[in-house]
Amino acid sequence: MKLPTAEIVCLGNELLIGVTVNTNATFIGDNLTKFGYEVRRVTCIRDDLELAADFFYEVFNRKPDIVIVSGGLGPTYDDIQLEVISKATGIQLQENSEALAMIETYYNQRGLSLSKERRKMAKIPIGSTVLKNDIGGAPGCFLSFKDMSIFCLPGVPSEMKDIFTKRVAPLLKEKNQVDFYEEKFQVLNCFESQLAPYINEVKGKFSELYIKSHPAHEYKAGIVIHISGVGGMQIEKVQQANKLLQELFQKHLPKIKIQSFTE
Amino acid sequence: MKLPTAEIVCLGNELLIGVTVNTNATFIGDNLTKFGYEVRRVTCIRDDLELAADFFYEVFNRKPDIVIVSGGLGPTYDDIQLEVISKATGIQLQENSEALAMIETYYNQRGLSLSKERRKMAKIPIGSTVLKNDIGGAPGCFLSFKDMSIFCLPGVPSEMKDIFTKRVAPLLKEKNQVDFYEEKFQVLNCFESQLAPYINEVKGKFSELYIKSHPAHEYKAGIVIHISGVGGMQIEKVQQANKLLQELFQKHLPKIKIQSFTE
Repeated sequence: MKLPTAEIVCLGNELLIGVTVNTNATFIGDNLTKFGYEVRRVTCIRDDLELAADFFYEVFNRKPDIVIVSGGLGPTYDDIQLEVISKATGIQLQENSEALAMIETYYNQRGLSLSKERRKMAKIPIGSTVLKNDIGGAPGCFLSFKDMSIFCLPGVPSEMKDIFTKRVAPLLKEKNQVDFYEEKFQVLNCFESQLAPYINEVKGKFSELYIKSHPAHEYKAGIVIHISGVGGMQIEKVQQANKLLQELFQKHLPKIKIQSFTE
Repeated sequence: MKLPTAEIVCLGNELLIGVTVNTNATFIGDNLTKFGYEVRRVTCIRDDLELAADFFYEVFNRKPDIVIVSGGLGPTYDDIQLEVISKATGIQLQENSEALAMIETYYNQRGLSLSKERRKMAKIPIGSTVLKNDIGGAPGCFLSFKDMSIFCLPGVPSEMKDIFTKRVAPLLKEKNQVDFYEEKFQVLNCFESQLAPYINEVKGKFSELYIKSHPAHEYKAGIVIHISGVGGMQIEKVQQANKLLQELFQKHLPKIKIQSFTE
């Protein structure tokens, strides 16, 4: 089954110089996967108009079905996300009255007026749809470009998550109605390399599933096994693969301990 | 001052599907910045030989001075980092006796022998230097390709950090001897948009410095201001810029509170 493809783009020097951990990509990747998208790349790029526009030319040449961009919608001089999108798509920015009203309301409620910097946040690509930000000042927006759907979101995690959950997720679910099903468990007292041959064996029998071991923690914390599938008939296959894999582990590695995985 | 450029590449589906937060890129980005490298991109790519090799062709066309790759050095079927590097560089993999001895010792000490899966980890690009892994089984390696230095590291954070600190950092410091200097402080009781005009003003006077506000947290947690510079004479300039910026904030925004930043 061929899944629609997605790219996640995170704009901001703070992600490149080690100031900020990119939890946005984790949140977006998790959600896109559950909505049945194959996330092909996550890229963090600098707040540099030329470099960032060059990067988006590449993205648009790869033609993912959707592109989620976060970061760089704010009021400061280096918040250049929409300038970059404008340069790379050739779609001009224009002050949007709906966006401007949202921004004005947001600051007025806090006893502040529209400054030049705040007003800048209302300039969005012509023809795009405003995505209301209920947490912060900068609205997001959504546009279609050469059969790709581009979602422009802020970088502050609470704002990004709120807009994603309330406004982006419903649009994505509508676009791609698939079922995602996942099971996971934890294996203690072993090395990942001991599990590899049995994972390969099950992987060979269920090639359409995603089966993977993650040694994310230290030896004693165990190894997490993920088994997932996308599409209507996958629940049964995920369960079968899970059962077979646990049987193989227990048969060949009597010392290991299998337990349910809690995050 | 033109800095040498770097790209960080993180290999692994778990980073794309929202299973793992990419703290590796944060650690590497922080270190590279302090060693005077300009990190141009962080990219997370899937465990897919064709897609990943295509990606590395692009990286090599951009000719960054260094490329740090993490993830995909382990014993499982989808640990394909070195296969990808081999395909993209045209440099063949060969079992390296030094790497093999390290792997054998690591498993022997734990009462385990060399399996086919473990032995695979000793196959590294011909001509590359082995980087010993003191924490886990998979050694890293370092190679030069078309004037670029490529560092191949594991994805498990504790292993990556150990190899980076002990073996990569000394090589990078030797290659690029620059001074990095940073000051930061926290501003409470304000919006980022209120700070923007004064940051722009100082930025205009100190164009060679990195000056940025990060609204990483919610309103009450404040905004963090970073001021940094690379090169011998920057300490004084960073201090001057910091002083001027705090003066401007205090003069124009009497309600704000400035305090030192603690992570």
